[in-house]
Amino acid sequence: MDLPAEGARRTALAQALRSAVRSGRLAGGTRLPPYRALAADLGLARNAVADAYAELVAEGWFTARQGSGTRVAEGVAAAAAPSAGAGPAPERPRHDLLQGKPDPASFPRGPWATSARRALAGAPTEAFGPGDPRGRPELRRALAGYLSRTRGVRTGPENIVVCSGFANGLRLLASLRPRDWAVEAYGLPFHHGILDAAGIRPHPVAVDEDGARTGEVPARARTLLLTPAHQFPTGCALLPARRAAAVEWARSTGGLIVEDDYDGEFRYDRKPVDPTPWQLGERRNSRQRLPVGALQALDPDRVIYLGTASKSLAPGLRLGWMVVPPGLMEEVTAAKGFGDWASSTLDQLTLAEFIRSGAYDRHVRKMRLQYQRRRNDLVARLAADAPHLRVSGVAAGLHIVLELPPGTEPDVIRSAARQGLALHGLSYFRHPDAVGPHADGLVVGYGTPTDSLWSGALDALMRALPAP
Amino acid sequence: MDLPAEGARRTALAQALRSAVRSGRLAGGTRLPPYRALAADLGLARNAVADAYAELVAEGWFTARQGSGTRVAEGVAAAAAPSAGAGPAPERPRHDLLQGKPDPASFPRGPWATSARRALAGAPTEAFGPGDPRGRPELRRALAGYLSRTRGVRTGPENIVVCSGFANGLRLLASLRPRDWAVEAYGLPFHHGILDAAGIRPHPVAVDEDGARTGEVPARARTLLLTPAHQFPTGCALLPARRAAAVEWARSTGGLIVEDDYDGEFRYDRKPVDPTPWQLGERRNSRQRLPVGALQALDPDRVIYLGTASKSLAPGLRLGWMVVPPGLMEEVTAAKGFGDWASSTLDQLTLAEFIRSGAYDRHVRKMRLQYQRRRNDLVARLAADAPHLRVSGVAAGLHIVLELPPGTEPDVIRSAARQGLALHGLSYFRHPDAVGPHADGLVVGYGTPTDSLWSGALDALMRALPAP
Repeated sequence: MDLPAEGARRTALAQALRSAVRSGRLAGGTRLPPYRALAADLGLARNAVADAYAELVAEGWFTARQGSGTRVAEGVAAAAAPSAGAGPAPERPRHDLLQGKPDPASFPRGPWATSARRALAGAPTEAFGPGDPRGRPELRRALAGYLSRTRGVRTGPENIVVCSGFANGLRLLASLRPRDWAVEAYGLPFHHGILDAAGIRPHPVAVDEDGARTGEVPARARTLLLTPAHQFPTGCALLPARRAAAVEWARSTGGLIVEDDYDGEFRYDRKPVDPTPWQLGERRNSRQRLPVGALQALDPDRVIYLGTASKSLAPGLRLGWMVVPPGLMEEVTAAKGFGDWASSTLDQLTLAEFIRSGAYDRHVRKMRLQYQRRRNDLVARLAADAPHLRVSGVAAGLHIVLELPPGTEPDVIRSAARQGLALHGLSYFRHPDAVGPHADGLVVGYGTPTDSLWSGALDALMRALPAP
Repeated sequence: MDLPAEGARRTALAQALRSAVRSGRLAGGTRLPPYRALAADLGLARNAVADAYAELVAEGWFTARQGSGTRVAEGVAAAAAPSAGAGPAPERPRHDLLQGKPDPASFPRGPWATSARRALAGAPTEAFGPGDPRGRPELRRALAGYLSRTRGVRTGPENIVVCSGFANGLRLLASLRPRDWAVEAYGLPFHHGILDAAGIRPHPVAVDEDGARTGEVPARARTLLLTPAHQFPTGCALLPARRAAAVEWARSTGGLIVEDDYDGEFRYDRKPVDPTPWQLGERRNSRQRLPVGALQALDPDRVIYLGTASKSLAPGLRLGWMVVPPGLMEEVTAAKGFGDWASSTLDQLTLAEFIRSGAYDRHVRKMRLQYQRRRNDLVARLAADAPHLRVSGVAAGLHIVLELPPGTEPDVIRSAARQGLALHGLSYFRHPDAVGPHADGLVVGYGTPTDSLWSGALDALMRALPAP
């Protein structure tokens, strides 16, 4: 019953399933109920149960095979018992290579404390009253400047709405637009689960090495969720021609694009943005090393831009932001107010001061160098020890993708679990309704391990990889 | 389009309606659409629109009469135009006597900054990673001690779940228990709106001078929302026999009681709790001046207790807490994790330190004295200038109820709006489906005005009251 501290995802359900396997209540070979059925029984979103299953597959407790469903892995219960010595799947993996989490040890405590003190001393009295559903004006002003400067976003403070992270913003939008979404065929199951919980069954759009195939968005779609700067998790930037096609779809159909700019700050190959990002759409069919600004700049009336402090600072802050088309502001503000989805006023004031003082820029620069070093380490080690495996998605973010020989992904994930590694395969991120070919692969996060654990994590990863 | 900073409630809808009246687009005498119809058109909760209407009635823009619906008030548009001098209903009332908001000028900036600095310096690294859906262990430990000491709640840290305020907790519970709620016939429309948005049409339970008539909860109800310590907004404490009846209902039907302890700290007539609050249930049919501990103590398996820092500190903190029956912990934790309803980690750590250091107790004591002085002022002034009106609900909280002669409430509300007063009548808080008699009254909040504005607010209130 005692959940580990690091985890909205390591939920009570996963924990309960683990306990059931460990105690023998779920015997090896037992077939699990379809997740739709279990979800209905528990009153949970379908994808929430799918996530829990996927997590236990990743950890080696369950096995999943096309056509035979999810089963309890053979032999894990005995091996996991305390008396059995080194079990195949430790309760808490020793090495965390899950994607998407910044290094918690690098949180800028000192500069943040300074900003917090200044913000608290300088706050107007009304800051301690009920919050504005759009967020504090101080933060909205600071974000408007920061986003236009670093991401090419075209906005003023009046179109910014503070939220408590991307998922929070997505949930809000799902409540306002309850039908006809399209999503990238690969994405975060947690986000798919949010749409699912809102009763939305999105149409998955295929993803290739140039990003989502935005020319294939169905005409009946009303809302398109994209990760243009850094497709999640495959790692490519959306090709300019694909960007233009997305905007063209929105204009011709009256649709809305939801831009998830989750880690736009962490690019290693080029500047995140140049002074005229909105010209990008004109350079069609080019794979030059263009800057990767926000898609929003192409059409601020058709794109709602979402960013977050969860990658650049810490997920525990629960701070994100939306840049909302002027025509949608009233609707979004009203929904936010009625929904009581406000974020901490004091953290908002602190982040405003943190940005204004330049501390945010300094922190992002420092972390970009730190993550780039990690990425270089990982890529060099793979080139030396696993040259037969292709690496992709290296140009940005906090994770890479390691391509695997067809059909080997489940074995490699199990092997990684035996090495005490927590990480996911590409199939974990594939939308359940996606069609078309699936490439086997590993999504390897490199942001989380501390320096002292990093080389051990690399060694374990190498042991888990398939031989040439 | 520019929303005032203090307000999740003064929403875009209310603003748009005000503008429409002011500009003449909605002419005096125009009948507004039924709120169900407008809610459907706008995709909002029914009660959200009802709230906006009620707010404009309270401000004098609209009139509402039994049987003739809501209409635009005659003459307000011209009077509100800038050239018309002192309009009858200023855009922003000069005196805020709305209930429920603590004094924003009294936020303990210094002690809070000290706690924040200590919390940030002492936080373990994992505090900057993804949050535990149940909240930080430091805060849950601090709350367990505080709640058992001051409110008689029976819990350990393991049954506490941090949320971002009462409304947030209520929304979570509504998602888990989507049917068959009973609520007090008088309550906060915002809370009714949350249930409404979740598709729940609760059964209203009558309220009299001993609190909710818990003996009349329908057997088919599964969940009962109560304000036992201080019925909102009528202000009485739930009689011990009624407490016992509520628990008996829950035990005999397998139902759950949701206890909203929104301002349990601010009692002026007796101690909030004594050492054996769970014995209260035995002293039936007594109106002795018993301490008013948490109902939860009577049956921790049947009552989910919710508290908040929104009244004791500031609503902008977005911090509340739930004490969850052991049998529900897994379900609540899972829903919370999947819903990404986490609160700021840093604020949680700060509040933990604030409680641990004794600063929270000191602040509550200070505010209790401050509010008690305000209440005494208000009651004395009413006794002198309006002795013909009965005052009730004076023993606790941040507001009183002023009883009005039958049928006069709408006129008094309009008169108050002309005096620049923002406040609500009792009918604003009546559940739309409530049956039975309605007593006219004013709910007068006294926590918000600054000292310099207080006597002006009292003068304006006296001018708005009906003559004997």
